[in-house]
Amino acid sequence: MIVVAGPASPKLGKRVAELLECELAPLEWKRFPDGESYIRIPGDLKGESVVVVQSTSPPQDKRLMELFFILDLINELGAREVTVVIPYLAYMRQDKRFREGEVVSIKVVSRLIESFNVDRVILVDVHSRKVLDSFNVDVAEVSAMPLIGSYFSSIDLVNPFVLAPDKKALILAERVAEKIGCKYDFLEKRRDRITGEIKTYFKKINVKGRDVVIVDDIISTGGTIANAAEMARSLGARRIYAACTHALLVKNALMRLSSAGVFEIIGTDTIESNVSKVSVAPAIVSVL
Amino acid sequence: MIVVAGPASPKLGKRVAELLECELAPLEWKRFPDGESYIRIPGDLKGESVVVVQSTSPPQDKRLMELFFILDLINELGAREVTVVIPYLAYMRQDKRFREGEVVSIKVVSRLIESFNVDRVILVDVHSRKVLDSFNVDVAEVSAMPLIGSYFSSIDLVNPFVLAPDKKALILAERVAEKIGCKYDFLEKRRDRITGEIKTYFKKINVKGRDVVIVDDIISTGGTIANAAEMARSLGARRIYAACTHALLVKNALMRLSSAGVFEIIGTDTIESNVSKVSVAPAIVSVL
Repeated sequence: MIVVAGPASPKLGKRVAELLECELAPLEWKRFPDGESYIRIPGDLKGESVVVVQSTSPPQDKRLMELFFILDLINELGAREVTVVIPYLAYMRQDKRFREGEVVSIKVVSRLIESFNVDRVILVDVHSRKVLDSFNVDVAEVSAMPLIGSYFSSIDLVNPFVLAPDKKALILAERVAEKIGCKYDFLEKRRDRITGEIKTYFKKINVKGRDVVIVDDIISTGGTIANAAEMARSLGARRIYAACTHALLVKNALMRLSSAGVFEIIGTDTIESNVSKVSVAPAIVSVL
Repeated sequence: MIVVAGPASPKLGKRVAELLECELAPLEWKRFPDGESYIRIPGDLKGESVVVVQSTSPPQDKRLMELFFILDLINELGAREVTVVIPYLAYMRQDKRFREGEVVSIKVVSRLIESFNVDRVILVDVHSRKVLDSFNVDVAEVSAMPLIGSYFSSIDLVNPFVLAPDKKALILAERVAEKIGCKYDFLEKRRDRITGEIKTYFKKINVKGRDVVIVDDIISTGGTIANAAEMARSLGARRIYAACTHALLVKNALMRLSSAGVFEIIGTDTIESNVSKVSVAPAIVSVL
């Protein structure tokens, strides 16, 4: 087995290779002055079982094209078996036709990826049956939540409480809370029948003086988490942590979370950045 | 016949539809906060012969993904026949393996485009047999040069002279000069056998007091044209025009050309910008 770490996932790719105790293929890449990507793999992959690790977080279209170039090269270089690890999968939120005439972007992305003789796809915290079903090849999903839970177990939290910012995230909060060994719950959104305004209610939960870990799969602009953090703060929470698998943090998300009283942001290396404090490598290797 | 103008080519697409006297399909597009593209065609294309016009100039990977989404939708919406006009084709300069292990990017791009049941591809000023050969479907190339020549015929030039910045561009200069009805030549690059320095020689051509039109297919960073402009200026040229099909103008190209004494830049709508002074729509329509 040999690992190819794409330009978006150099650290995660290296960690996966280390855990597998296998070779990391040489990969050269650059961008030309006009923005075109250049990919080179100066090695032999003949008969190899190759694991490509390439996230497709923003700039997502560049990351996708880089992935296509890598997959094409791997075929050219004679790989026997190709597994693609896509730690963050672009376009996964466009997984159905919300309005007539819309493109189901994830179907296009999955079809393009598969067209390169891919045998297996590994995704992290997708949380959508439709996304998994958009692939025709063997697909596995792993979760970063137990690893995020372990991270919080290793730091001293005061009477911790895990909070899901909405019902959809409750299953994530549960997995984190399990590892920490603490309680968890979710925030409920209700529309005021008269004003139409959306209000968030805290369901009889006492977080006064407690460290609160808010958990979600993706933090994008940070709006949902900021809202939950403000709620927790108003209820007297001690420290507020925001944890997620995919810390996209677009626009002024960092500022927004900080203003809302978030003490620390914990992301993973599905998107490599300053907040990648947890590595999903063990989860990926567990299914390889 | 119905035309779909992609997000990169709204004006050119409209012009093509006007010349064809056919309908322009409705197209909605936007970018989400994280940079993902959204495409919607709220119309029926059942049984239609569809012409998609989408340039893939920078941001080229975004433009390619938008094109893939459009092509997928067109198939979904039941088009009978699909022609793709790609006024500027990204990655066309990576048309061979210069070093072992390199990806031949254009082959990947052409294969991906073709995978969407495309019947025909129309390109503009590609000037490479390899690029045309990278497509397996019917492919046509048209040139903007006669149209650029007509543009210069319509403005008052003083004793004009058309200059190719290198031998490769001579065939382009010829076509422009033909329309203007003037002389043309190219600059020759020679390597000094002792110092190894590349020198540009002007071949006994008198441009003193004449308007010089420098012609190339692509202006990228502007280095080649700036060099030629400086040479023409040093030889006493009156006004210096820089004309090309694809005005990429990356980095500080505009400043560079201006500093080198270029009076005006003339590009086409293969890349829609402030310098798109010539439309390639008539050339495209001529092969539709």
